[in-house]
Amino acid sequence: MPKTLCVISGGMDSATLLHLATKEEGRVEAVSFNYGQRHKKELRYAASQCDGLNIAHDVIDISSITPHIGGSALTDDIDVPEGHYAAANMSLTVVPNRNAIMLAISYGIAVARGIEVIGAAMHAGDHVIYPDCRPAFTEAFDRMERLAVDGYGHPDIRLWTPFINKTKTEIAYIGGDLGIDYANTWSCYKGAELHCGTCGTCYERKEAFRDSGVTDDTRYES
Amino acid sequence: MPKTLCVISGGMDSATLLHLATKEEGRVEAVSFNYGQRHKKELRYAASQCDGLNIAHDVIDISSITPHIGGSALTDDIDVPEGHYAAANMSLTVVPNRNAIMLAISYGIAVARGIEVIGAAMHAGDHVIYPDCRPAFTEAFDRMERLAVDGYGHPDIRLWTPFINKTKTEIAYIGGDLGIDYANTWSCYKGAELHCGTCGTCYERKEAFRDSGVTDDTRYES
Repeated sequence: MPKTLCVISGGMDSATLLHLATKEEGRVEAVSFNYGQRHKKELRYAASQCDGLNIAHDVIDISSITPHIGGSALTDDIDVPEGHYAAANMSLTVVPNRNAIMLAISYGIAVARGIEVIGAAMHAGDHVIYPDCRPAFTEAFDRMERLAVDGYGHPDIRLWTPFINKTKTEIAYIGGDLGIDYANTWSCYKGAELHCGTCGTCYERKEAFRDSGVTDDTRYES
Repeated sequence: MPKTLCVISGGMDSATLLHLATKEEGRVEAVSFNYGQRHKKELRYAASQCDGLNIAHDVIDISSITPHIGGSALTDDIDVPEGHYAAANMSLTVVPNRNAIMLAISYGIAVARGIEVIGAAMHAGDHVIYPDCRPAFTEAFDRMERLAVDGYGHPDIRLWTPFINKTKTEIAYIGGDLGIDYANTWSCYKGAELHCGTCGTCYERKEAFRDSGVTDDTRYES
C-alpha cells in the first residue's frame, strides 16, 4: 500500500479525501497550511478529522509569504463576497498560485519521507474561478514534479485528485456513504463562531447537502 | 520593457542575472529566500548587489518549511562535502524540490505585482546533480504556471533562464564583460567568515574564474 500525504484544509472535500485515502490508499499522513487565512479556524477542524482517523498531521506556517502575494479577501481586509460563487464575485477569494505553492512544499515533504502519493481535493465546482483547480493544471503539475524530484533514489510520486471531475454534491454523497461527520468540518470563509450561511462557500456547502440528500448538521448564522 | 522579478541568492550566477536583467529586460525587482540555509550570509550579498543596482529586494522567510523537508547538508548538521561536485558527494546538498517551491512563491508575487518575467539563474553545471536545474524542469514549470495563473486578468508570465545551457565559466565571462564586482558575491556552502576554498561550490567558483580569465578577488581560507 503506498504511503500517502493528503493536503487538507478543514473542509468537506478534505475530510472526504482523508477518509477515502484511508480506505483506498493505505498509510496516510496529512498536512495543512496556515497562510494567514481569515478562516484559520478551519485548521482546528483539519486536526480533529485527523485525530478521529489516527492520522499524523502537520500544520506548516507559510503566513510570511502571504503579504507578498496578498490582494485576496481570504487573507486581507477586503469583505468576503456574499451569495453563490460567480466569477466576478469569487475571484476576490483567489490567492494567486496558492495550490502550486502548497503542492510544491508537499512534494518536498514527500521526498523527505518516502511518500509516493500526494492527495489533493480540488473538485469540478472550483474550475470556473480557480485555474489551479483544473485538470490541465494538476496534470501539468504532476509532470513538472516528476522532473523536479527525478533521481533522488526515490520512488515516483503521483498526484492523486479523486474529485477533480466531481461536483461538491457528488463528494457529499461519497462522504455520506463513508459515514463522515461533516458537522466536524469547516467551510465558511468568514471564520466567525458559526458558519455564516451566506458567503459563496457556505452557499455551496448547503447546496451540496441539499442535492446529495446527506443530512446537514451544520449550524448556520442565517 | 517588461517588469522582471529575479530570484537570487548572493552568488555569482545571481549577480550576473541581475546585471543582465537590468541591461536586457528593463524594470527589475528581486527576491531571495531564507530557507534556513547554513550559508545565510549569502542573503547580505544579495541585498548588497541589489543596492548597487538600485533594485528593490525582498527576503522571504520560509525557514518554517525546512524542518519538514530537511536531510540536506545545506540546512542540517551533516557536514558539507569537500572537493569537486560529483553526484555521490553533492547529492547531500540537495534540498528536495527547492526550486519548485521558490519559483511557485515567486509566481504568486508576480501575479500580485503585475510582473511579466521571472528570472532564475540555473546553469548547465547544475544539471548532473540537481534535477530542478535542468531545462526539462524549467520548461515544465513554465507550462504548469501558465495554467496555474491563467485568467487572473494578468499578462502571461514567462520564466527567463538565460544561463540554463551555459557553464559557470561562461557566466563568469559574461559577468566580466558587464563589469560585475564578484568579490561582492557569496558562494561557499559553509558560510564561515571567508570562502573555505575547498567545498564543491568554492571549487566550482575558482574553476570558473580560472577558465574564464576573469580576475578572482575572493579571499579564500585555503
